[in-house]
Amino acid sequence: MGAAQNGCGPMIPPLSESSRPLRQQIFERVRAAGTMPRVQVARELSVSPATVTTLTSELIELGLLEEVAAPREADTGRGRPAVALGVRAAAHLVVGIKLSDREHTAVIVDFAGNLVADVARPRVPGPTELPALVDATEALVQEVCAKAGVEPARLSAVGLGLPGFVDSELGLVHWSPILAARHVPLAATVAARLGLAVHVDNDANLVTLAELWFGAGRRLSDFAVVTIEHGVGMGFVLNHRIYRGARGLGMELGHTKVQLDGALCRCGQRGCLEAYVADYALAREATTALNWGGREAQPVNILLESLYDHAKAGNAAARSIFHRAGRFLALGLANVVNLFDPELIILSGERMRYDYLYANETLAEIKALALNTGREAPRIEIHAWGDLLWAHGAAALALSEITEGLLGQVREMAAQ
Amino acid sequence: MGAAQNGCGPMIPPLSESSRPLRQQIFERVRAAGTMPRVQVARELSVSPATVTTLTSELIELGLLEEVAAPREADTGRGRPAVALGVRAAAHLVVGIKLSDREHTAVIVDFAGNLVADVARPRVPGPTELPALVDATEALVQEVCAKAGVEPARLSAVGLGLPGFVDSELGLVHWSPILAARHVPLAATVAARLGLAVHVDNDANLVTLAELWFGAGRRLSDFAVVTIEHGVGMGFVLNHRIYRGARGLGMELGHTKVQLDGALCRCGQRGCLEAYVADYALAREATTALNWGGREAQPVNILLESLYDHAKAGNAAARSIFHRAGRFLALGLANVVNLFDPELIILSGERMRYDYLYANETLAEIKALALNTGREAPRIEIHAWGDLLWAHGAAALALSEITEGLLGQVREMAAQ
Repeated sequence: MGAAQNGCGPMIPPLSESSRPLRQQIFERVRAAGTMPRVQVARELSVSPATVTTLTSELIELGLLEEVAAPREADTGRGRPAVALGVRAAAHLVVGIKLSDREHTAVIVDFAGNLVADVARPRVPGPTELPALVDATEALVQEVCAKAGVEPARLSAVGLGLPGFVDSELGLVHWSPILAARHVPLAATVAARLGLAVHVDNDANLVTLAELWFGAGRRLSDFAVVTIEHGVGMGFVLNHRIYRGARGLGMELGHTKVQLDGALCRCGQRGCLEAYVADYALAREATTALNWGGREAQPVNILLESLYDHAKAGNAAARSIFHRAGRFLALGLANVVNLFDPELIILSGERMRYDYLYANETLAEIKALALNTGREAPRIEIHAWGDLLWAHGAAALALSEITEGLLGQVREMAAQ
Repeated sequence: MGAAQNGCGPMIPPLSESSRPLRQQIFERVRAAGTMPRVQVARELSVSPATVTTLTSELIELGLLEEVAAPREADTGRGRPAVALGVRAAAHLVVGIKLSDREHTAVIVDFAGNLVADVARPRVPGPTELPALVDATEALVQEVCAKAGVEPARLSAVGLGLPGFVDSELGLVHWSPILAARHVPLAATVAARLGLAVHVDNDANLVTLAELWFGAGRRLSDFAVVTIEHGVGMGFVLNHRIYRGARGLGMELGHTKVQLDGALCRCGQRGCLEAYVADYALAREATTALNWGGREAQPVNILLESLYDHAKAGNAAARSIFHRAGRFLALGLANVVNLFDPELIILSGERMRYDYLYANETLAEIKALALNTGREAPRIEIHAWGDLLWAHGAAALALSEITEGLLGQVREMAAQ
């Protein structure tokens, strides 16, 4: 990037990076770093300090950034105190909510992502009617606002995550294990009730957004997040943004087929990855392996704890269940590598406690199944986070929509 | 997009579209349409005519666009003749080359993609040393230039495609069936010999670029191309650009695993999709099915023609080979749908003549294996194109690199 680049040499910067508007790149660098002096922004993006000054003044005018005191190491001690750029934390407050099978959680955060308050409410598992879900959502917003001492009218937006097939762009929930109806315009329905902008997404994308805004995204522009809980989900960050597939319903890694005519999946099809590695897949084999006929009604987490204990104690059948799940997980992750070639894959979810799933042999098998190009394999990190993190991701969804809207305005203003 | 959009409503335009610089969107609309009046550009992009006038004058100054007479239907017959925008065809000449196992092909095209001349040269199959490949490339450039009556010095760039694992950004060929060495800096080596900018990519991406510049890309911003020939390749167009994976070596659909511990692949691993559907996979089963022991030395295309004839004549073993290949192809394509959710998948390559591979039952199986969201399945089109198209794609690679460079310059100028 930069005027010295003629674009015709064999070495050019990645298209994706150079094609993003500079204002957005500046905002994202500052957000990721927390604070950053203008001169460092100019250096990292290889543009002139004058350009950075012009563009950041627009971002400040729009309320996205503000001037803050620079961290001590940037202060030379000479002349006036050093100034850096930071995200204007007070600009917006948003609520992030994760609706799930066993409990709902909500957080309230400021524009810089700082947590202001959080609440959690257990619920009766299973699908529910839409009006009841909207009631529950409204109650959560009121409760978390009360705990934070914030008027709901002060909120700028609400981010809402739930499991299932969600079209985030259209705000539609095509199917969710916690909703009785299909093709529900959830965003619009909740927005009408709350009188607030509402954005929805599936739960794997929430974890990915949390990583993008508050975790790995501070260092990397492209990475994958794979969640293993009751199902198997995936989120992908492409060029600092979450990628949801061309028509908004992609990244369903859990339903990619890893075996023709294979194991039966909850979705009704056969051979899906999650039919080999998700909670319910391990649980149904556990009832066979542990001779637990008649005890299927037990909560799945109790069953899995017992299976795990038996495997650790050397039970061959229990071990073989985790072993096979680990091998299929390796196959699924290798396919992610072969298709997306990410620098990092984050494995996330409660089930990551079962270290059989990511034992050394599983990690070795990923390498054996991924394309042998001679380059180093992508890093794989384990983040065993809970529902509060997912709610934080829902807040990041709201924050990112606000940011997109503001950056869209400044771009249009500048073009005219 | 647009100032009226506050960004907080539940309905926002796709992030990918609104985040692309307007100049680039204007250039791509005009290129895709052939010619387009300014007023139509403004309407399609929902920006003011004044903005379009400002930005297009920059694009004209840079030599990317020019004013042309508008097509008749846009001419109202009143006042001065209507003027439209078009890509400036004379701005650049580029050569596109496909190096492959059985022959090399080259084309020379202008900046609007019009074919000026083409040549094809048969070669002895198998891997060759780098110097011999560079010699062959230089000879092709000279030959196609001579045929076109163009001095090689007038060329702006060369696009070069070959099968294998290619890092386009770095110009590296990690492995190719036609190169004896690994990790070859092919772009730099050929560039040094020719004294020209050289860009390399794998052959599946060439077909995808050809579709992007001259085919489906004229209508769609996102689609997948799957090639089935000696191997199985994939290209993906994301937001009007080719996507090569986060680190440049993704989209290796042919080496995604569709069976744990499955059929042996040329790459040395087991269970790769191409080990079930590519030429060599069918050929090795054909020698068994047709009891052709000792005839393995025959060219693979002769063997496959015979297998196809036997299948059509009702030979059960021959039919079962195509049947299984078709089912695994369906599984691979369903996985593309589940991950990328494209509007269109184009199946390309010589092997598409074997209609067993895409018979109605295969297409039905894709639907059965893809996620059931209640929406319409993506369209699947068959394009049985030859090597000349692939060379055209190599030319498109050169054209897109030139365009990227020029758009990068104008963006930087505008920012300062």
